[in-house]
Amino acid sequence: MTYRIIIELTQKQGNIITLTPEQKHYLKNVLRLKENSEFIVLDGQYNTYLVKLNNDNGQIIKPLKEETELPINVTLMIALPKGKGFDEVIRSCTELGVNTIIPIISQRTLLKPSSHKLDRWRKIVKEATEQSERQRVPTILEPISFSEALKNTKQPNQNCYICVTRKHAKHLLTYLLPEITNSITIATGCEGGWTEKEINEAINLGFIAVNLGSRVLRAVTAPLVALSLVTSVIEQSYPKD
Amino acid sequence: MTYRIIIELTQKQGNIITLTPEQKHYLKNVLRLKENSEFIVLDGQYNTYLVKLNNDNGQIIKPLKEETELPINVTLMIALPKGKGFDEVIRSCTELGVNTIIPIISQRTLLKPSSHKLDRWRKIVKEATEQSERQRVPTILEPISFSEALKNTKQPNQNCYICVTRKHAKHLLTYLLPEITNSITIATGCEGGWTEKEINEAINLGFIAVNLGSRVLRAVTAPLVALSLVTSVIEQSYPKD
Repeated sequence: MTYRIIIELTQKQGNIITLTPEQKHYLKNVLRLKENSEFIVLDGQYNTYLVKLNNDNGQIIKPLKEETELPINVTLMIALPKGKGFDEVIRSCTELGVNTIIPIISQRTLLKPSSHKLDRWRKIVKEATEQSERQRVPTILEPISFSEALKNTKQPNQNCYICVTRKHAKHLLTYLLPEITNSITIATGCEGGWTEKEINEAINLGFIAVNLGSRVLRAVTAPLVALSLVTSVIEQSYPKD
Repeated sequence: MTYRIIIELTQKQGNIITLTPEQKHYLKNVLRLKENSEFIVLDGQYNTYLVKLNNDNGQIIKPLKEETELPINVTLMIALPKGKGFDEVIRSCTELGVNTIIPIISQRTLLKPSSHKLDRWRKIVKEATEQSERQRVPTILEPISFSEALKNTKQPNQNCYICVTRKHAKHLLTYLLPEITNSITIATGCEGGWTEKEINEAINLGFIAVNLGSRVLRAVTAPLVALSLVTSVIEQSYPKD
């Protein structure tokens, strides 16, 4: 396995990647790479390069053609769960290919995130991007209220779903098959679920209420289930081979 | 929400549920239920009862008709990941509806589980059964080697899949659609994946190699993705309404 790091766009000038002190430390002291050892650099914007260590910096050997990004834009609106569960949720969602995560302060959200949480979340998302061999770092927005998120989200031609426990809602998969052709947004609730008011507000804006099965899922499990379905339907409709 | 507890079959005699000291403590001291308060009792074998607290025991008011179990048997063979990840995996898989979990000691498994792990896992599975409002407690077997598990698993008419990172394997969802008609077994690897030898052994026994998408999933994410797909395809093929 070749090691992967993500850089800021400004770190690349021509064929030279200027490494930050942390990256130098990681490559030379942690990974113990020697002069001319190879590693992979991602600029977080779909470009991937094979690079060698050269005089404490990176020298690009060649661009790599890797395609592990989904061809369709997927946004998750996740009501913040209690405890530390959200860290693991965004890590898994990044692996699964999400493009944008909007942390939601819903009416039943107990946790009001502190301001340094966002930095921590962005660090997790970046790590997970490297580990899952993606080319693009997903965007994680500032936590906002559900009403505000709803107003910003719904675009024409975008499919939007809100996951609910109502028994008469159809299963999300029913709407995703046979294929997904437009960008998609899915909202999942926190412990206790969305309030009736929140569900109705979303439905009035064009969201479709869906369920994720007969059993009661925890707030940390629901986004993974929804995203597993979305990414799998997209990938098997647009095979690479 | 009505509180739910799981009993052993021997605790029920006629209409009386004899509570264990732990259950009495939980209902009376933790939940602070009073005489004649109602709660729900599951016997872990598909029977659910509405019960009232009566003289330190439970008295059945009526059986409840609940159906949150999948109509098709789903078995997961999960190679033990490193660290504490497995606890969370079995909790989520129980919520999602798995019937049998077989912890696998694969060639790349680093963790050799201690003997008291199994008790801990069974406790987690039971808690998750209650929380997700299932009727049946999934079975979690003793950890065994992959070869041994393979020999015990494959039955005629059972669909068996092994998740691999090989690019030419088709996506699991391709095989699951349009519906799942027979019981199903899915094997997911640990960090570093299955060895070639393990994959070939499984294929020789009739397993089909599948992938779960273009990105690299962690060992703790893969079983959830596979199970999300299986349970969703089953539930949307057999709607309740």
